[in-house]
Amino acid sequence: MFPYSFSHADGSTKRALLETVAPQVITSGNKISVVGVGMVGMACAFSILTQNVSSEVALVDAIEDKLIGEMLDLQHGSQFMRNAKIRASTDYSITVGSRVCIVTAGVRQREGESRLELVQRNTDILKMIIPQLISYSPNTILLIVTNPVDILTYVAWRISGLPKHRVIGSGTNLDSSRFRFLMSQKLGVAPTSCHAWIIGEHGDSSVAVWSGVNVAGINLQLINPSIGTDDDTDKWIDIHKKVINSAYDIIRLKGYTSWAIGLSVSDLVSAILNNTGNVHAVSVNVTGMHGIAEDVFLSLPAVLGENGITDIIKQQLNNDEVLSLQNSARLLYEVQNKLKF
Amino acid sequence: MFPYSFSHADGSTKRALLETVAPQVITSGNKISVVGVGMVGMACAFSILTQNVSSEVALVDAIEDKLIGEMLDLQHGSQFMRNAKIRASTDYSITVGSRVCIVTAGVRQREGESRLELVQRNTDILKMIIPQLISYSPNTILLIVTNPVDILTYVAWRISGLPKHRVIGSGTNLDSSRFRFLMSQKLGVAPTSCHAWIIGEHGDSSVAVWSGVNVAGINLQLINPSIGTDDDTDKWIDIHKKVINSAYDIIRLKGYTSWAIGLSVSDLVSAILNNTGNVHAVSVNVTGMHGIAEDVFLSLPAVLGENGITDIIKQQLNNDEVLSLQNSARLLYEVQNKLKF
Amino acid sequence: MFPYSFSHADGSTKRALLETVAPQVITSGNKISVVGVGMVGMACAFSILTQNVSSEVALVDAIEDKLIGEMLDLQHGSQFMRNAKIRASTDYSITVGSRVCIVTAGVRQREGESRLELVQRNTDILKMIIPQLISYSPNTILLIVTNPVDILTYVAWRISGLPKHRVIGSGTNLDSSRFRFLMSQKLGVAPTSCHAWIIGEHGDSSVAVWSGVNVAGINLQLINPSIGTDDDTDKWIDIHKKVINSAYDIIRLKGYTSWAIGLSVSDLVSAILNNTGNVHAVSVNVTGMHGIAEDVFLSLPAVLGENGITDIIKQQLNNDEVLSLQNSARLLYEVQNKLKF
Amino acid sequence: MFPYSFSHADGSTKRALLETVAPQVITSGNKISVVGVGMVGMACAFSILTQNVSSEVALVDAIEDKLIGEMLDLQHGSQFMRNAKIRASTDYSITVGSRVCIVTAGVRQREGESRLELVQRNTDILKMIIPQLISYSPNTILLIVTNPVDILTYVAWRISGLPKHRVIGSGTNLDSSRFRFLMSQKLGVAPTSCHAWIIGEHGDSSVAVWSGVNVAGINLQLINPSIGTDDDTDKWIDIHKKVINSAYDIIRLKGYTSWAIGLSVSDLVSAILNNTGNVHAVSVNVTGMHGIAEDVFLSLPAVLGENGITDIIKQQLNNDEVLSLQNSARLLYEVQNKLKF
Repeated sequence: MFPYSFSHADGSTKRALLETVAPQVITSGNKISVVGVGMVGMACAFSILTQNVSSEVALVDAIEDKLIGEMLDLQHGSQFMRNAKIRASTDYSITVGSRVCIVTAGVRQREGESRLELVQRNTDILKMIIPQLISYSPNTILLIVTNPVDILTYVAWRISGLPKHRVIGSGTNLDSSRFRFLMSQKLGVAPTSCHAWIIGEHGDSSVAVWSGVNVAGINLQLINPSIGTDDDTDKWIDIHKKVINSAYDIIRLKGYTSWAIGLSVSDLVSAILNNTGNVHAVSVNVTGMHGIAEDVFLSLPAVLGENGITDIIKQQLNNDEVLSLQNSARLLYEVQNKLKF
Repeated sequence: MFPYSFSHADGSTKRALLETVAPQVITSGNKISVVGVGMVGMACAFSILTQNVSSEVALVDAIEDKLIGEMLDLQHGSQFMRNAKIRASTDYSITVGSRVCIVTAGVRQREGESRLELVQRNTDILKMIIPQLISYSPNTILLIVTNPVDILTYVAWRISGLPKHRVIGSGTNLDSSRFRFLMSQKLGVAPTSCHAWIIGEHGDSSVAVWSGVNVAGINLQLINPSIGTDDDTDKWIDIHKKVINSAYDIIRLKGYTSWAIGLSVSDLVSAILNNTGNVHAVSVNVTGMHGIAEDVFLSLPAVLGENGITDIIKQQLNNDEVLSLQNSARLLYEVQNKLKF
Repeated sequence: MFPYSFSHADGSTKRALLETVAPQVITSGNKISVVGVGMVGMACAFSILTQNVSSEVALVDAIEDKLIGEMLDLQHGSQFMRNAKIRASTDYSITVGSRVCIVTAGVRQREGESRLELVQRNTDILKMIIPQLISYSPNTILLIVTNPVDILTYVAWRISGLPKHRVIGSGTNLDSSRFRFLMSQKLGVAPTSCHAWIIGEHGDSSVAVWSGVNVAGINLQLINPSIGTDDDTDKWIDIHKKVINSAYDIIRLKGYTSWAIGLSVSDLVSAILNNTGNVHAVSVNVTGMHGIAEDVFLSLPAVLGENGITDIIKQQLNNDEVLSLQNSARLLYEVQNKLKF
Repeated sequence: MFPYSFSHADGSTKRALLETVAPQVITSGNKISVVGVGMVGMACAFSILTQNVSSEVALVDAIEDKLIGEMLDLQHGSQFMRNAKIRASTDYSITVGSRVCIVTAGVRQREGESRLELVQRNTDILKMIIPQLISYSPNTILLIVTNPVDILTYVAWRISGLPKHRVIGSGTNLDSSRFRFLMSQKLGVAPTSCHAWIIGEHGDSSVAVWSGVNVAGINLQLINPSIGTDDDTDKWIDIHKKVINSAYDIIRLKGYTSWAIGLSVSDLVSAILNNTGNVHAVSVNVTGMHGIAEDVFLSLPAVLGENGITDIIKQQLNNDEVLSLQNSARLLYEVQNKLKF
């Protein structure tokens, strides 16, 4: 179908150059698949490749032209990415043997469309994607990025039949990163030395855990007891507001978000592939945590390893924080109950 | 102008947390500026940041919304990029003290527009950009990426008044990378072990130097004497044709090229900042090389260091290759002569 | 003197190959010097080179054979370290223009030698080294690694005449790293997600700040109020004891410590060269902090940037911790007062 | 046995902090084992860890004290190496599931000992090591570093019973790197842009393939026809002589070689783990190549992938080069025949 074939070449140069000892194989020790090659999917793939997180990436999308174009554009830079292998196909067999499958595919909200309608449409899409990913990579970890991420991570988990530690939503790992950057601007301290955790629902109802905000182990609540409240003359609450508005702001300014979510996902994949045991705020099945009874996914700090989530951190939250989480859980649960699988 | 200010915060937390010893300074040891935040400019910036080539990037563009959106999106991922500093402004003062200034700004060809008209419009744009970059970074190296890159590198050199070793076009570094990838596919050998050089004009009239194509020092011409000719039953010439068509193909498929040119530029910047002495095919002033008398820029293998081009490699080209270069030089020169500065 | 010269070659190949455009220069944008090529100095240099922290390292030592041997051994691997440049000389002019000068040179304690005698001997060595480093790199940052590091950082500061933000001791950055590793073993969480700070004197009298030990912002003191005391049934105090014994244990087992101190120093240099603003526990002038009146150096969490220490973090320490710091300060001060400069 | 245990702690903090979702597992996606923790073995391990080639390294040695000391010293820096996991034991079960096993263990030549006696002693050591490695990692690739490397790679191959593509000697990958560094010094071009191949026996009788020495595809033999001969006024042969003398020189100067061989091995492991298809000069079974009939191992350029050697490059060597290889083969074969297995 495509002009990039070498069918008429006779391979004589290769035979004259190489004495074959054993066939080349690909057993996919660190293979990553990305479903959906929109701005988010490509930022994920490019971050993973340029940060040397994986040397093998498979791309899948329904739109073949765009897909092949992105594949070629990455392949042409393979020399600059430690000879990473990039493949792409509309057929999911290209994903066989993936350690992690990143799902960024999905539709955006139409004008006048209810949230439930949007979720149902994306659920229908996941019903096509997830079984195929699992059939080609039964031991994979699913990393869901499509929004609304918490509910779609639940949907992916339910469709997949995988144990809950192997279905993860990108969740508030990005929100936490945004908070730390803004905190770093406020204090003049590097983002990675600014410690803060945004948990709960990715988006408008996320929870900033003020009791854990610290630099070098110094809890900022100790030196600014009103931190995070409206009484705070140092206006820390503005940072959380800005985090919540970030996606809206950036979409208004440049049309979409891409780089930070791509980097955030690459960060999660690196923790999984290298089995680091790092703690990240990701969307996980929270049933039983913080008094939540419903079978929903929300972001909490969790330990990531090569088999996915090994542990969830038991934070000591105050009443407001717990109520906020429980409220999010109830709302998600109501939507979930109306979905048709 | 923008909601991201902290003007009403009183800074009390910072004062309670930090005992200042000395003011924070930025003297820009590895600062890079990127002019133009379109797909190419952002792929350059993102490659440079994710590959840890620089920890400080300034973005400039005329369109403020897009510019601020891109800046925020990068900043939100700062935690994942070794706390790199990203700044942006429509004012060139943001570029002060840059080691390298990458110029990706420019307009695309309008329907019915002649090549000369396009070049004149981009020349007019460079007349605004280059003097400002030089005024804020008199010791910088200019790296021109905007197409047609060879002629615009000449234009930038002339406008800038810089010595010729400090004005470089991204040239055929990308074409060479594309060739090596396709060669790697043909042979089953990694791109970085496939050695080949595309020189001359970036684009349709580029020259593949078949006499230098080798793996592990084995010249493929020795084992396939017809390589690069129409007689070759192994069809190596198809690779060069595909290189020439790459940009057209990708633009048709995904609408623009971005990743590979971004990686190619990051590769050049890394060689400069680290003073490696690596050889790259870049657009340089070729007057006096290969019998070219005109004051034009074309890609030849050149040694890159922290002060730009230190040496040009004297390749032993055959007659056809030399004629092709001379022909490109003459055509470029004719266009250059009609430009208004 | 040495066989590695090319004096009799006539350079004809180079002239035939290269058309010189501009001379190669070295203006040392990220140059690091290491004084002392023992196990510690070489682990520092090798960490800095392999982690791509700097692309230019100068080595200085009094013993020429060893020095040249180490230089050659590194140079032979330059291809695998992004073509980094490694130079070495017994003459300090090799260090000209260094951004950071790392001092690992010094003598070890002789049998029967008092601590004061040891410090005096190393002071005499610093009196030779420091003025030469400063004369060739007046804007450098001094990073002292030789033990006893706190007192010798004071000595280097006094000899150098530099402002206090530009003289840093490697201090308890390593002790903190050891604590975090042991904490990670205890919890099954990655070291970089285990937050804890060891401050004060590097070595036997270091202080573990239990109030700041946390994972994901959850203060472990909240869930284990007796942490760090003898009453703790979970024996966290053992971790601090092991940190204190680490150097003794490793010296007993392998004869010296090298890798972890090398990595710790590389970490500090990276923060400085990239102007990150990261917080590290390093030995700084603590006069005026925590009620310390003496002009001494001890480790506290401090913000590192390209001009050295910009801020010291004001921790909220308990009485015992403050008394321990003040006691260390007094003991250091007494020794300092007996030194001959 | 060792003080580093947490046996008396009751784990209450961990239980209070973590809600376990799934057990932590280690399935060793990129596990590397290093046998022998002398200077070479540790330089290999440290290069692999600091260059992020693997996140899991197991060390084995017969001398427990040294072994545990090296393990602790690496572990204490885990925070600075992406939380890499380092384990060590005198028991080979620690190596289970290794992708690559690097063998650096062995004895050095005693005074008065013949080469055959030395090889026999190291053969006896390999007879203990290799079967254990294979029993715990039946799918592993063996990478032999102990000298004399060519003959010991044969020995390891024969003992192991592995197919020949899975037993590799570090060979002249290092010699080639040394040559490229010296060539870079001579030309003022980066080592990675200096292309040259040293093949054959690692050590005194190695062969410099002058016909392949090139920069940017320009064969230096074309511009200096006497290159590599005694007639060459530019004395390129001196470079090869220096390569041959390198190990002797460095051993005389610093007592042993370590950094460059460590980096060279890390380079090979990276090619294998990332399945790059890069070409490296490594010691492989050369039977049938260049008219060699004996079952011996010598270095030739070979393509490395995740299953080891996939192809050997068929170089066009001149008569002298072929004779030299055949002579090396015969000498190796004679020694091999006298070994007792």
